[in-house]
Amino acid sequence: MLERTVRVGILFDFYGELLTDRQQEMVRLYFYHDLSLGEVAEECEISRQAVYDNLQRAEKILEDYEKKLGLVARYKYIQQQVDDLTEVVDRIAQEIGDESLEKLQQIIDNLSAEN
Amino acid sequence: MLERTVRVGILFDFYGELLTDRQQEMVRLYFYHDLSLGEVAEECEISRQAVYDNLQRAEKILEDYEKKLGLVARYKYIQQQVDDLTEVVDRIAQEIGDESLEKLQQIIDNLSAEN
Repeated sequence: MLERTVRVGILFDFYGELLTDRQQEMVRLYFYHDLSLGEVAEECEISRQAVYDNLQRAEKILEDYEKKLGLVARYKYIQQQVDDLTEVVDRIAQEIGDESLEKLQQIIDNLSAEN
Repeated sequence: MLERTVRVGILFDFYGELLTDRQQEMVRLYFYHDLSLGEVAEECEISRQAVYDNLQRAEKILEDYEKKLGLVARYKYIQQQVDDLTEVVDRIAQEIGDESLEKLQQIIDNLSAEN
């Protein structure tokens, strides 16, 4: 379950905006606020089964977007490059001037923040 | 018109997969293969007006995805960082060892290729 929660959480970060408001609300309550199906049902004033179906549907929609756009995979790839970059910069830190190093660090920070 | 073609082309590169096959076909014929509305109409066996409406709709869908996901903006931002990185690396090229430089260059290439 934890693995599923993390997976849906990441997908939701990228594609959540593409779900309906109602779907977003249920995903937030269930996966972020860790409410039970019954509690979400009460909150949304629908049946437990309807919550279950809606969550299944929302999860499938998110996975379908990832299949088509691959943003999560791309994010992880770029993050790996940024990590590699950080390692290289650490290694050459002693060999180059302070100004260049600061600029490199700034770019790494920018890439990390944006990614 | 050229500006619009470039804009739709970029949006289509990112979000084209999210259009229907039919919409993708019309966008390709009109914006990539530079056919006229009449020629697309003939190719797709629908009216010129229907082609016009479908293209308008497809363009709006692409713009709506960009509003929600911002991939084009993000792409441009990361590309700018990669350009900055290239410039810094060029500047410090003389000061650091060959091995580190090769690794940096490899990461820049990876980021550019993936972005």
